[in-house]
Amino acid sequence: MEAQEHQAAATEAPKSGHNEIYDEDGVVLASFLAHIGAAIADRDTLTLKQDVAALHESELGHLLEALQPDQRRSLVELLGTDFDFSALTEVDEAIRLDIVESLPNAQIAQAVQELDSDDAVYILEDLDQEDQDEILAQLPFTERIRLRRSLDYPEESAGRRMQTEFVAVPPFWTVGQTIDYMREDNDLPDSFSQIFVIDPTFRLLGAINLDQILRTRRTVKVEDIMHETRHAIPATMDQEEAAREFEQYDLLSAAVVDENERLVGVLTIDDVVDVIQEEAEEDLMRLGGVGDEELSDTILAASRSRVPWLLVNLFTAFLAASVIGLFDQTIERVVALAVLMPIVAGMGGNAASQTMTVTVRALATKDLDIYNAWRIIRREMGVGFINGIIFAVLIGIVAATWFSDPYLGCIIASAMVINMFVAAVAGILIPLLLDRYGVDPAVASAVFVTAVTDVVGFFAFLGLASLWFGFG
Amino acid sequence: MEAQEHQAAATEAPKSGHNEIYDEDGVVLASFLAHIGAAIADRDTLTLKQDVAALHESELGHLLEALQPDQRRSLVELLGTDFDFSALTEVDEAIRLDIVESLPNAQIAQAVQELDSDDAVYILEDLDQEDQDEILAQLPFTERIRLRRSLDYPEESAGRRMQTEFVAVPPFWTVGQTIDYMREDNDLPDSFSQIFVIDPTFRLLGAINLDQILRTRRTVKVEDIMHETRHAIPATMDQEEAAREFEQYDLLSAAVVDENERLVGVLTIDDVVDVIQEEAEEDLMRLGGVGDEELSDTILAASRSRVPWLLVNLFTAFLAASVIGLFDQTIERVVALAVLMPIVAGMGGNAASQTMTVTVRALATKDLDIYNAWRIIRREMGVGFINGIIFAVLIGIVAATWFSDPYLGCIIASAMVINMFVAAVAGILIPLLLDRYGVDPAVASAVFVTAVTDVVGFFAFLGLASLWFGFG
Repeated sequence: MEAQEHQAAATEAPKSGHNEIYDEDGVVLASFLAHIGAAIADRDTLTLKQDVAALHESELGHLLEALQPDQRRSLVELLGTDFDFSALTEVDEAIRLDIVESLPNAQIAQAVQELDSDDAVYILEDLDQEDQDEILAQLPFTERIRLRRSLDYPEESAGRRMQTEFVAVPPFWTVGQTIDYMREDNDLPDSFSQIFVIDPTFRLLGAINLDQILRTRRTVKVEDIMHETRHAIPATMDQEEAAREFEQYDLLSAAVVDENERLVGVLTIDDVVDVIQEEAEEDLMRLGGVGDEELSDTILAASRSRVPWLLVNLFTAFLAASVIGLFDQTIERVVALAVLMPIVAGMGGNAASQTMTVTVRALATKDLDIYNAWRIIRREMGVGFINGIIFAVLIGIVAATWFSDPYLGCIIASAMVINMFVAAVAGILIPLLLDRYGVDPAVASAVFVTAVTDVVGFFAFLGLASLWFGFG
Repeated sequence: MEAQEHQAAATEAPKSGHNEIYDEDGVVLASFLAHIGAAIADRDTLTLKQDVAALHESELGHLLEALQPDQRRSLVELLGTDFDFSALTEVDEAIRLDIVESLPNAQIAQAVQELDSDDAVYILEDLDQEDQDEILAQLPFTERIRLRRSLDYPEESAGRRMQTEFVAVPPFWTVGQTIDYMREDNDLPDSFSQIFVIDPTFRLLGAINLDQILRTRRTVKVEDIMHETRHAIPATMDQEEAAREFEQYDLLSAAVVDENERLVGVLTIDDVVDVIQEEAEEDLMRLGGVGDEELSDTILAASRSRVPWLLVNLFTAFLAASVIGLFDQTIERVVALAVLMPIVAGMGGNAASQTMTVTVRALATKDLDIYNAWRIIRREMGVGFINGIIFAVLIGIVAATWFSDPYLGCIIASAMVINMFVAAVAGILIPLLLDRYGVDPAVASAVFVTAVTDVVGFFAFLGLASLWFGFG
């Protein structure tokens, strides 16, 4: 998670370095994997240290994910202190826990000291309270206080994701003094793109981008070139909200402040990129009826996480079935209705899911708000009506031909227009209402929308048919 | 798209500046909108210039989106040269085109010169060739050549998104010389986090992060502290691939090089964040059966873009219907089958869409590859089997009770186990196979998967029922 090109690797490895690890699809090369696998089997520490040391943390992460569980643990054990723990921030939670729990707490404590504080917190936060305390107890005082402070902020808050290493100077320093300080102090963060200006109590006064410092003469005071930090992030702010600030204002890094406006850390864009990615992924997963599942979850964990959604859907399925049950005598006389009825319900469901997808996404990105809601609702109704007519005609003709019954064609066509229009309305209004009442539209929309299109689809088609053919 | 806090605004506006524009949900305040609307109606240029000048480009973008089309055009007209064209990179394509096309080309040419080259290209690329040429013709020579070069790269390539302004120095310069050059040259990019080292033919030799320069003594030569640029991005590389490089290696900026390895521009993380966002969104939209739709699309455009997916689904719906048609005589005798059959098909569809969502996302993030495919396939089969048993029991009991027929309960239970298992297999194998054969799994999976779960669901349930009750 370090916002810096991997210099060590760049110097040792040839320019095409990582091309030798991945094939053209970006998958870890089978030959590289076999080579590492053999070295693990032979306990060939020398080869491992040589070939794995040149990897970027994310490359090492991919390697770990591609290995078998026992190979993973052996690799970490064989590398010893040469294992780059920051690679653990790049793998699935289940893999991370498996590796960390296989190691003695003393070794983890040792490794954690080498990490940036944000990476250390990322690894520690998933551990039991007991292990966490034991590891923290073995750290030097300042390190311990820093990590403890981050861990005390709520999960998924800016305080958890921030880096506690930063450069801060007093306002009366000159640019020259600041540059000299950076040249002499060896305790700087690994990389940074901004320095902060603070008062003696650590209260944040402003920030300066590095390029600004480089363009300014040495005699100028920092307070004269600093800009006010409009986007200081409270440590308790949710990481998603912080990510949105970054996105909207194109920030590279932002100061994180505590409840007294005191500077406690810095949040950098590279950490935020992961949050943005996760957030978009969350909507997709929720719309698909899967929660926070990870690929490394076990069968039972995955099964358990998916049952609730299926259960809710089961109720809507029985609801739809009971609508069909109302018309069982009509179906008994005209069995073609049973053959055709899933088409009406299904096409409505598909049309509604199109509208719902657009709506849920627009709500998530805040592109849909009270200013354009009515316009979008009107648009969706228009789309539903036009597409309803198109598919009513198509399906009507096919059904009339199939069962040699023009009346049946007219009935299914009318039902289609009704259901496609209702589908559009449900597809936009349900997510909007859920959002309005504080329910995540990505989680709950699909169930309600399907219930509506199923019920209306069956009711409209079988109802119209019963009016025409009689109720049995 | 400028990777810098908005200094002008920060100085003029109080710290809580943007809180006055948005309500707590991040929506533009109705009072602010009314205020601006009134100023537009009164053609009160002074108020507009004052209140709009303090806005960040993204805030101005949100304001434009919240206004009515005619208000938008008036606002831009009234602001004249005070209108910040970079706000146009923050709005929907339809709105951008509407505004740009309402302006004379001469005014656009004037405005484009004030923009960073990446923003200028972003606005120009959507225009007709003719307008583009006319605008470019009115630009100074170097500006024209730069933009033309970017526009000559393929759409959605790194060359289109790069900024052509950058700082580059020869390898024999010292850190001191470099700093002095930056202090004296007024033609620097607005903000930057890296400087590049090039030979006299502009061939890229390396890069140095600004913090590295600040920590190094003035007498050191840049070639001694530069790092090799492992992640130089070819200008023709697809923007998504470039985004993945940024994500994997936590880059803040990267050199963009032409086919001769000559430095032509720099790609920065703030542009890449938009690409990452779009990419995740694309999968969600495709899974939901909507293409590159935007909220500002017209009814006809939206309708047209959704018809193809519905059309393909229509075929699978008729396929499922014809499976039901095979068993019409059984249904005529046991009408409860018609009532229950959508449950079997629907639950299978829901289970399959869960598996499919996980698979499509894992393929997109490259978390699913040949090394774990078999493990994941086995896991999904396990989940499908377990959830199949759970819901078979539930549905079997309800159906047996509803129709007072234990045999019917057993039949639907058996059909459920079969369909949930098949759903799991289809949900993972279909996206995997599509991906293998170069078809985007997000676009095509849902159709095939639904076809399978519908056909198998109806066939298993009605087939088993026919075996038990007789074929009519």
